[in-house]
Amino acid sequence: MSTTAVTTARIVRSITELREHIRQYRLQAGPSAAVGLVPTMGFLHAGHASLIRRSAEENGLTVVSVFVNPLQFGPNEDFECYPRDEARDVAIASEAGANVLFMPEVTEMYPNPPKTSVIVSGITERLCGASRPGHFDGVGIVVSKLLNIVQPNRAYFGMKDAQQVAVITRMASDLSMPVDIVPCPIVRDSDGLALSSRNVYLSADERSQALILSQTLKLVPSWVEEGIAAAELTRRIRERIQSQPLSDIDYVEALEYPDLTPPAAGASLRTLLHQHPLLVAVAVRFGKTRLIDNILLTQKG
Amino acid sequence: MSTTAVTTARIVRSITELREHIRQYRLQAGPSAAVGLVPTMGFLHAGHASLIRRSAEENGLTVVSVFVNPLQFGPNEDFECYPRDEARDVAIASEAGANVLFMPEVTEMYPNPPKTSVIVSGITERLCGASRPGHFDGVGIVVSKLLNIVQPNRAYFGMKDAQQVAVITRMASDLSMPVDIVPCPIVRDSDGLALSSRNVYLSADERSQALILSQTLKLVPSWVEEGIAAAELTRRIRERIQSQPLSDIDYVEALEYPDLTPPAAGASLRTLLHQHPLLVAVAVRFGKTRLIDNILLTQKG
Repeated sequence: MSTTAVTTARIVRSITELREHIRQYRLQAGPSAAVGLVPTMGFLHAGHASLIRRSAEENGLTVVSVFVNPLQFGPNEDFECYPRDEARDVAIASEAGANVLFMPEVTEMYPNPPKTSVIVSGITERLCGASRPGHFDGVGIVVSKLLNIVQPNRAYFGMKDAQQVAVITRMASDLSMPVDIVPCPIVRDSDGLALSSRNVYLSADERSQALILSQTLKLVPSWVEEGIAAAELTRRIRERIQSQPLSDIDYVEALEYPDLTPPAAGASLRTLLHQHPLLVAVAVRFGKTRLIDNILLTQKG
Repeated sequence: MSTTAVTTARIVRSITELREHIRQYRLQAGPSAAVGLVPTMGFLHAGHASLIRRSAEENGLTVVSVFVNPLQFGPNEDFECYPRDEARDVAIASEAGANVLFMPEVTEMYPNPPKTSVIVSGITERLCGASRPGHFDGVGIVVSKLLNIVQPNRAYFGMKDAQQVAVITRMASDLSMPVDIVPCPIVRDSDGLALSSRNVYLSADERSQALILSQTLKLVPSWVEEGIAAAELTRRIRERIQSQPLSDIDYVEALEYPDLTPPAAGASLRTLLHQHPLLVAVAVRFGKTRLIDNILLTQKG
C-alpha cells in the first residue's frame, strides 16, 4: 500500500456490530490494543480531522462517531437543520485515519426515551449551560453512552467547547470511567475564525464581522498582563465585539478553569493565574448563527 | 485440591490494583473471559453468599465489593453504625467462591466530593426513594463507579431491594453499559425473615414480630387472585402488619414492575398481571430498625 492510499473507514450503524468489531480488534491486538474515540455531530471540518489524526497516531483503532444528538438541542435550536453530509464525513474521517465510523440512527441510540440523567453540577450552570438549558444533560447522556459502547482508552474533544471538555473530564473522573479525556487545541481558518460546522450558516458580511472574536481574544494575554480584574477584561472584550454592528453578545466571561468559578471580584487576573488556569470564553450571535470561541490562559514557567 | 478447600479471596484496596488484576485475568482467559461483580455493603449473610455463588458459577472471575457508601445514607440514617466485620466478610465471600474482594476506603472511591449525579427519574420517586431522599442518587453514582472500575460482564443484585434492581437495570440500559444486571431471589431465614445486614439490630421481640412481613406477603398471591384492586390489597396488608404492636409502617405499595407506576385506581390486579409484573413492597420499622420486603408477581402460563 502506498503512503497516500486511503482506506475507507468501515461504516457501522448498530451498537451490537460496533461492540463486536471492537472486541475482535482487542482480541487480535492483545495487550497493546488501544482504542480512540472521536465523538462528533458530523459535518466534519479540519478541527475534527485534527482530533482524528491525533487518535490515529495514539491508538491502534480509531472510532469516529457521527451522531446529531437531539437531546442536546433546545426546542428552538437548530436540530432539524443542523448541517449533515454523510459522504463528505466518510471521506474526511477516512483521510484523517479513522478505522470505523459509527453512524447510528436516533432510534438505535434511544430506543426508549431515557429516564436516566447524568448531570455535572457546578460546572454546567454558566456559559453555554446558562444559555442552553438542558444542553449539558444531553451531552452527559450521549457521551456516557458512547464511552460505554466503545470503551475507548482515550477520547478526543476540541477545546473550542472548553466547557464541554471540563464537564466531560469531571464526569469521567467522578464516575471512574476508564478513559483518558484528551483535550485538543482549537483549529482556526487562515483568517482566525474558529472552525465550526455552524460557520456554513454565516453570510459573507456576518463571517467577516465574526473575525472580531478571535482578534479580540488574541489581545487577552496582554490585557491580563496589565493586572486588570475580570470585570474590566470582559468590559474591554464586549466593547470591541460590539464595534461590529451585526454582533449580538450572548456571554463574555472570565472564569477559573476547569471548575468554571468566577474569580474574586476585583482580583488581578495576572495574580490569579499563579493558582488557576483562566478561561476567557465568548458566545456571540451574528444573524441567526451563534458562535463560540475562547482562550485558555495558563501560568508559564 | 480437595473440593472442600477454600482459597481466600485476594483483598484489593485500590482502584488501580483492581483494574490491573482484572486486566491480567482477561488477557490470560482470552475470548472466554467473564467477570462477575457482586456489589455489597459488607456484613455479608447467606443472601450475599447466594449472589456470589451464582457469579462464581457463571464467570471465571468474581469480584465482590465491600463498601459502605456514605452517599446513599441520609443525615439521620445509620451510616456510622452500619455493621462492619471485615474478617467475617472475607471468610464468607471466599467460601462462596469470590476471587477478589474490593474493599476501598471512602477516600479511594471519593477523593473529591463528586459533582456528577446519575439520576433515574420516574422509578426513584416512590418506595425507598420517597422515604430516603437522595438515597438512589448515592446508589446511582456508586454503582456507576463500580461498574466502570470492574467492567463486569454480569452484576448480581438481590431482589430484596427490588426498586434498586429496577433503577440499576434502567440506568445500565439507558447509558448503554455493557453489563447484564442479574436479579437474584430473596434469601430468607428458616422462619421466613428476609435476610438483611440490619437484622442484627433487632431485639428478640422485634424480630419475632417482624415475621409478620413475610407471613403477610405470602398471602398476596391468593388475595390478588380474588380480583381485588391495589387499594384493597394494601389495606389488608397494613391491617395485618399493624396487628403487631411494635410495627411502624413506612410504606405499603402495589406497583407495576419495573417502571414502578401505580395501577389504575380500582383496576383488578389479577387482570393487570396479564400486562405487567406486579411488585408488592413494604417498609416497616420495628423499634429503630427499618426493614424492607416484597413479592414480585408475574403472570404464569
